[in-house]
Amino acid sequence: MFIVKIFSIHKTKEKWLQEAICEYEKRLKNNFLIKWEICKDEADLEKKILNESFFICLDEKGQKLTSLDFSKKLFEFFQSNNLKINFLIGSDVGISKKIKDKASFVLSLSDLTFTHQMIRLILIEQIYRAYQIHENTKYHK
Amino acid sequence: MFIVKIFSIHKTKEKWLQEAICEYEKRLKNNFLIKWEICKDEADLEKKILNESFFICLDEKGQKLTSLDFSKKLFEFFQSNNLKINFLIGSDVGISKKIKDKASFVLSLSDLTFTHQMIRLILIEQIYRAYQIHENTKYHK
Repeated sequence: MFIVKIFSIHKTKEKWLQEAICEYEKRLKNNFLIKWEICKDEADLEKKILNESFFICLDEKGQKLTSLDFSKKLFEFFQSNNLKINFLIGSDVGISKKIKDKASFVLSLSDLTFTHQMIRLILIEQIYRAYQIHENTKYHK
Repeated sequence: MFIVKIFSIHKTKEKWLQEAICEYEKRLKNNFLIKWEICKDEADLEKKILNESFFICLDEKGQKLTSLDFSKKLFEFFQSNNLKINFLIGSDVGISKKIKDKASFVLSLSDLTFTHQMIRLILIEQIYRAYQIHENTKYHK
């Protein structure tokens, strides 16, 4: 079982977002445990994430990958981290330098700026896609 | 009134996607007319799009822009095309060379591959964001 923990500040209030995320969680549930860690504020997020030995930051200034490369990297990270990966979605003001400096990897989804809602949805779909690529199914073809 | 016509093949079946898109259409409705042109198949899409004098293709191999640059370009295009822009979302196999060669601009949303559902949602949110940037509101700040 692969364990993915996603740290963020904002709650998922939108019904459509809950439904969309739920769809991917359902598809992943046999092989993945997805945990959403909602932090109270920036300070809470920083405290919690800095306790983790391995985490990936999502940040506009990070490295850009294709879905194939993301899949490869994700499963390398799973291998080297006892099948457990933490992701961090920052707040509107971005992620502090302190956190970014400690991150194991900083990933940019796009040059475009997305809403937090969209980032959450894109991330879980890319995790699902990465798994399908890893399993060599038809999803990504 | 700005007119945006989005050509694609796949229908929006997912309820969550309809709700999400509807939210942005509602926010845009005072200033934008958004039309979804669903084509039967590739041939139908090709026939319809090649009748248009100006269209933007969404394609992984296109040009990547920040949201600020997308906003700038979008409103330049509106200016030079009587406030009307067509977008084209291709099928799973991508967009034919014939169409790409005739496109006024080829835009890539990301190095990552997204589902058609996601592309539709990202596009309409970016149009909304572009308008907010253009109007200098707080949305993008």
